[in-house]
Amino acid sequence: MALVVPAGDSLADRSVAVHVGLAVATATEGAPRARDLGIPFDGTPGPLNAITDVAGVTVGHTTLISGQGKLKVGVGPVRTGVTAVLPRGKNSLNTPVFAGWYSLNGNGEMTGTTWVEESGFLEGPVMITNTHSVGVVRDAVIQWRVAQGNPEPDDYWWSLPVVGETWDGWLNDINGFHVKAEHALHALNTASGGVVEEGSVGGGTGMICNGFKGGIGTSSRRLAASDGGFTIGVLVQCNFGRRPNLRIAGIPVGREIEAPEPYTFVPSDVAERGSIIVVVATDAPLLPHQLKRLARRIPLGLGRIGSISGNGSGDLFIAFSTANKDAGASTGVRDLKMVPNESLDVVFGATVDATEEAIVNAMVAAKDMTGADGHRVIGLPHERLREVLKKYNRLTP
Amino acid sequence: MALVVPAGDSLADRSVAVHVGLAVATATEGAPRARDLGIPFDGTPGPLNAITDVAGVTVGHTTLISGQGKLKVGVGPVRTGVTAVLPRGKNSLNTPVFAGWYSLNGNGEMTGTTWVEESGFLEGPVMITNTHSVGVVRDAVIQWRVAQGNPEPDDYWWSLPVVGETWDGWLNDINGFHVKAEHALHALNTASGGVVEEGSVGGGTGMICNGFKGGIGTSSRRLAASDGGFTIGVLVQCNFGRRPNLRIAGIPVGREIEAPEPYTFVPSDVAERGSIIVVVATDAPLLPHQLKRLARRIPLGLGRIGSISGNGSGDLFIAFSTANKDAGASTGVRDLKMVPNESLDVVFGATVDATEEAIVNAMVAAKDMTGADGHRVIGLPHERLREVLKKYNRLTP
Amino acid sequence: MALVVPAGDSLADRSVAVHVGLAVATATEGAPRARDLGIPFDGTPGPLNAITDVAGVTVGHTTLISGQGKLKVGVGPVRTGVTAVLPRGKNSLNTPVFAGWYSLNGNGEMTGTTWVEESGFLEGPVMITNTHSVGVVRDAVIQWRVAQGNPEPDDYWWSLPVVGETWDGWLNDINGFHVKAEHALHALNTASGGVVEEGSVGGGTGMICNGFKGGIGTSSRRLAASDGGFTIGVLVQCNFGRRPNLRIAGIPVGREIEAPEPYTFVPSDVAERGSIIVVVATDAPLLPHQLKRLARRIPLGLGRIGSISGNGSGDLFIAFSTANKDAGASTGVRDLKMVPNESLDVVFGATVDATEEAIVNAMVAAKDMTGADGHRVIGLPHERLREVLKKYNRLTP
Amino acid sequence: MALVVPAGDSLADRSVAVHVGLAVATATEGAPRARDLGIPFDGTPGPLNAITDVAGVTVGHTTLISGQGKLKVGVGPVRTGVTAVLPRGKNSLNTPVFAGWYSLNGNGEMTGTTWVEESGFLEGPVMITNTHSVGVVRDAVIQWRVAQGNPEPDDYWWSLPVVGETWDGWLNDINGFHVKAEHALHALNTASGGVVEEGSVGGGTGMICNGFKGGIGTSSRRLAASDGGFTIGVLVQCNFGRRPNLRIAGIPVGREIEAPEPYTFVPSDVAERGSIIVVVATDAPLLPHQLKRLARRIPLGLGRIGSISGNGSGDLFIAFSTANKDAGASTGVRDLKMVPNESLDVVFGATVDATEEAIVNAMVAAKDMTGADGHRVIGLPHERLREVLKKYNRLTP
Repeated sequence: MALVVPAGDSLADRSVAVHVGLAVATATEGAPRARDLGIPFDGTPGPLNAITDVAGVTVGHTTLISGQGKLKVGVGPVRTGVTAVLPRGKNSLNTPVFAGWYSLNGNGEMTGTTWVEESGFLEGPVMITNTHSVGVVRDAVIQWRVAQGNPEPDDYWWSLPVVGETWDGWLNDINGFHVKAEHALHALNTASGGVVEEGSVGGGTGMICNGFKGGIGTSSRRLAASDGGFTIGVLVQCNFGRRPNLRIAGIPVGREIEAPEPYTFVPSDVAERGSIIVVVATDAPLLPHQLKRLARRIPLGLGRIGSISGNGSGDLFIAFSTANKDAGASTGVRDLKMVPNESLDVVFGATVDATEEAIVNAMVAAKDMTGADGHRVIGLPHERLREVLKKYNRLTP
Repeated sequence: MALVVPAGDSLADRSVAVHVGLAVATATEGAPRARDLGIPFDGTPGPLNAITDVAGVTVGHTTLISGQGKLKVGVGPVRTGVTAVLPRGKNSLNTPVFAGWYSLNGNGEMTGTTWVEESGFLEGPVMITNTHSVGVVRDAVIQWRVAQGNPEPDDYWWSLPVVGETWDGWLNDINGFHVKAEHALHALNTASGGVVEEGSVGGGTGMICNGFKGGIGTSSRRLAASDGGFTIGVLVQCNFGRRPNLRIAGIPVGREIEAPEPYTFVPSDVAERGSIIVVVATDAPLLPHQLKRLARRIPLGLGRIGSISGNGSGDLFIAFSTANKDAGASTGVRDLKMVPNESLDVVFGATVDATEEAIVNAMVAAKDMTGADGHRVIGLPHERLREVLKKYNRLTP
Repeated sequence: MALVVPAGDSLADRSVAVHVGLAVATATEGAPRARDLGIPFDGTPGPLNAITDVAGVTVGHTTLISGQGKLKVGVGPVRTGVTAVLPRGKNSLNTPVFAGWYSLNGNGEMTGTTWVEESGFLEGPVMITNTHSVGVVRDAVIQWRVAQGNPEPDDYWWSLPVVGETWDGWLNDINGFHVKAEHALHALNTASGGVVEEGSVGGGTGMICNGFKGGIGTSSRRLAASDGGFTIGVLVQCNFGRRPNLRIAGIPVGREIEAPEPYTFVPSDVAERGSIIVVVATDAPLLPHQLKRLARRIPLGLGRIGSISGNGSGDLFIAFSTANKDAGASTGVRDLKMVPNESLDVVFGATVDATEEAIVNAMVAAKDMTGADGHRVIGLPHERLREVLKKYNRLTP
Repeated sequence: MALVVPAGDSLADRSVAVHVGLAVATATEGAPRARDLGIPFDGTPGPLNAITDVAGVTVGHTTLISGQGKLKVGVGPVRTGVTAVLPRGKNSLNTPVFAGWYSLNGNGEMTGTTWVEESGFLEGPVMITNTHSVGVVRDAVIQWRVAQGNPEPDDYWWSLPVVGETWDGWLNDINGFHVKAEHALHALNTASGGVVEEGSVGGGTGMICNGFKGGIGTSSRRLAASDGGFTIGVLVQCNFGRRPNLRIAGIPVGREIEAPEPYTFVPSDVAERGSIIVVVATDAPLLPHQLKRLARRIPLGLGRIGSISGNGSGDLFIAFSTANKDAGASTGVRDLKMVPNESLDVVFGATVDATEEAIVNAMVAAKDMTGADGHRVIGLPHERLREVLKKYNRLTP
């Protein structure tokens, strides 16, 4: 995915870059994930250790990488994109999911949440992009819905897409507004189950996390059959935190991994400028107020990573359940299932564990990147990380 | 209910007063309610036009009236009490109900709401008393539960009763703390279905509303079979507002009903000192987040009465559903029913209509009362009210 | 403002239409407002009886009216627009205002509110448009900010504009996405103090309210010097409600004003499809949590109009204070002023009164409109309204 | 503080036990705290490393320990108490503090929070006791206020004390309701600055935390002068968590510290039954919405300890600022100070750090305790803990 389009690349070529970028996505297959490095985590992941372990959930990325060198607003360099999470894949518009959300620190945007809170439903995809492109992506989702036809027109008079963001203006020409409606549509139309590409892809392309390169990460947990056998999946777009606060496996590794020479400044050396969007999916039949409870557990996972949720951070979380497929029908009295509150502790624990791991997965996957004005952000150095964890006897054998 | 115990009545006699008070409660039967006076309201009430039209809901009052003349803290005069609303009558502790709550203006107390918000359940009764007696009533509910035995002890380690209040210190020796655990137990143990006593009874005994005597009021709406045939019941303990703001049937009657001679000051002549607790019950199968939506509609009913929800007002509302009887079981996956959001407009309308009528019912039922330091509060004068409404062509024929 | 561009008008002509539209805006001067018709309201308005009575507040509209006849998506007819409210006029981006918000019923969008809630600040304008154009308007506000330069770049890394909406798809080709960035910029750049155009203008162009033509309305209250002498202004984009629920001056006029012949169907004959955005401005020095208290009072004003806040309604409110001009500076310890909670009752009352009047002003100002597919919505008939109010003795002499 | 009153001790002797208990409190002086054991924490504490480092804050405990052996409801064994935190010491009733609160998991009670949320003020002490004694303590605070006279009676018509709780029914005869009004008054009247007793004292007497003995803990941070020089203090009543989740200094020590032989069951071996109340104090001039931001950071500290905030946990947090001493005056326009949001990161970090340390302090201070029915809970074994941390190279030299 580390597609760096040569200097001189014009805006007109960008849509080509997109497709090339997606074409080479498999290049990251085989790349190590956090567990592969021996980092210990609690709980048992699903087969993919990804949000797509929750049956039906699909993920699509549009990655925009073009240009290099001096920032020229409207031209580039471009290091940004869009990620789409579809709770029920292609059925996501006709079959809403119960959902709940929470804002740990609201220096960010997640459109559509007022209706999630009111109705208890998420009625389409969750989109994630950069801060300045929330609007174009939002309206594009409505376009997409309109284009897909409208079998029961009365059900679709409103249109309140959920679009989150984090800020990528250090590496990306964010004021150039390079994300277009077509890029949102591409992420929606190419979303699929299976392996989820991580790191500098989709909405996460230009992100920075705890002083290192950030981006998209994912993880999952599968509960024991005796606990219901449910799956909980998490996907993050991770752009938060400062290096001195970074903890992995409980170890303050951010202080032990010395700055590379020559030193590369990142804005979070001065103050937190980032954010994190977290999407939680589960097939456990949870009601909206219970899904909000899941969203409220995300900070417990962030706490393990050392987050203090700085003033500049937009830490916004949404959780949905793919169960109760008929809940959203608008007539009659609906039949629902619900896991009792008394059985939720394992779900809470899985949410916290998967959040922790998804963040580390994002950082492990993201490679060094050079962007606007030659700003350079290094990826978390795998070997150095292992050395530090070994010093603290925290490497899994 | 206008039991005024003669001066010289000692505290030791108070428990007698309670029982006498309850014994004569039937004296208020036959008293006119708001509709009887020709006040127009929207919608179709249930047979009792009371919260007890929702099957299973029971209401109990303990009314404490004793002493007269100069206030002597700890002695009296006493004009206070406790009201208990049991969502499922005697089964209310073993079978919780889905619930939601809302605070329009939080200058008041409603204990237990943090757990209502988190769990989606109301696990026992809703109690209403005076501001300084919330604690004794709260702990008494736990006592009551403990005394009723504990078949599944693990389910009952927590105990978070819901107790609301409004302030009756103008008529009542509120700093005398006259409400005791036994009075809470009495309201719980004598709660019943059927006609609900209104006016200066139970927790509403010493209340003032829009410059006139306030207290307990109730109303209900029954939906058409085509709308689900559900019942929505409302009970208020009504202590809010100032005379100049009072609107009945949309007419600013508070400005047209002249002060009685000799003029009787009430604290709300200066500023709002009151509050209103509203309890909404329904048999419609609504989820917790939908019940919160009902609670958030109460201000629309208060708006019709002219409320501005002053800074001094504790305007706290709770709504519950008696459907989904097995929702609260702590094991397995529960089967639930839910009315779709798209069908809620009639439920919302019924909630607003019944709130409006319950308040006017409270004011119509409450008679003149003289309490601490000879403070006198007059009841809303029925004939004068009818004259004003007639002037505005707003009397139902 | 009733600029109806002849059939055959092409999209290419639309930007012309905008300017023509604005040019003839003065045509509505002299049109009667609610008070002029003898409708009674409480409280004392400011000189303009408009949100612009709060010093510094400016309002701009872009009104898009073109085409007629059969709906052709992407072509028209177009009946929509954008309204901009700038808390401090041109200084709104450099000098944020304290703010708070509330959602009575969240079937709507107001972007940026997560940061309002978190920070206590509104950092730019409040924009209002149609549901499908929230995104384009949002990103346009960022463009506008970027274009205005960036004296302290660190303060402007985030960009979280506040944009609300209501749905105009009955009269307008909403799926044609006719609102463009330029239209948002035009509303921002032409915003001014003074008289605020009401009715079918700006974001309110294609709106329907209580079965009649809706749109933009405004009102204000000025407190007595003894109450602080503060001004409270309200602006609404009013698209909510059904005809049978409409109450004006407490009278259910919606049931008394018979449908015009031949009858013109509107969607709210079947169910509520609308919404209302309310913006409250004040020069009273209120803290963020106090401004949220103002926003929570809006339902009391809606209640007077008969609203039940149906499931389909996006009833979202934001309140800001223009006092504390230095509150938003990012360094040092700030000096602030605060009105004590104990003095807020008059502010609450003014907010409720001005909300009620702003809604009626919107309905009184909006004229009959024919839009997409020949759908026709009639304006509230002034003379018939007066007749009804007279029948109930509710006309101001 | 490990005052175990011999068997046969009658309830009548309990008040003696209280005083003896308090008399020997100094016995815990010199006991090691978490830092003394070499556990590493971030940030710089104040001189006492206690909430009382915030000037003016006082803390009082009433510790009730009597009886042993078989539980006899109403007799004992008694292992409970009350803790009082007074924001401004004796001036706490006449001079409210700005405050904000947050519920991470609402399976608990904190009375008075509805008014904290609405008004922005905490108007008296924060009390902490056991779950079944919230009521008696709440009403006792009103009694205390009434007894202290009422110079401006109009300001005191409402009375909405803040009382939190956690459940101590494993060690304590919680259904015996042993906490009386006098015990609340004792905690209030003996509150002082200086060293805060930790462990099994006050409201924390009978608590269990992460499978070990819990109770009261405290910590503080002092910011650099360049960051404002403010102090942030935290006090916890700590009763949450399960042994397998316990992390200290990032190390999962709960899994490494083997169960003592013979094994002593605690309820959290099966499922979380506990809770945690956290009180944050600061002298930084923060507004109510900013204090809520502090309260929302507490989960980040809990995350470091391994909390998943189980369904049974009542995790309720309140934060207040002792600055702005005149903010609560009810007349005129108040002059306030505010730290800008942009300067809050250090305050957020200090809150997270002090929360983490206060919890570990509580666990380090609490000794083995035997209570009702001979239930025994062991204190966190200091030497074993040090061994485990040493194994992970996490002991401070």
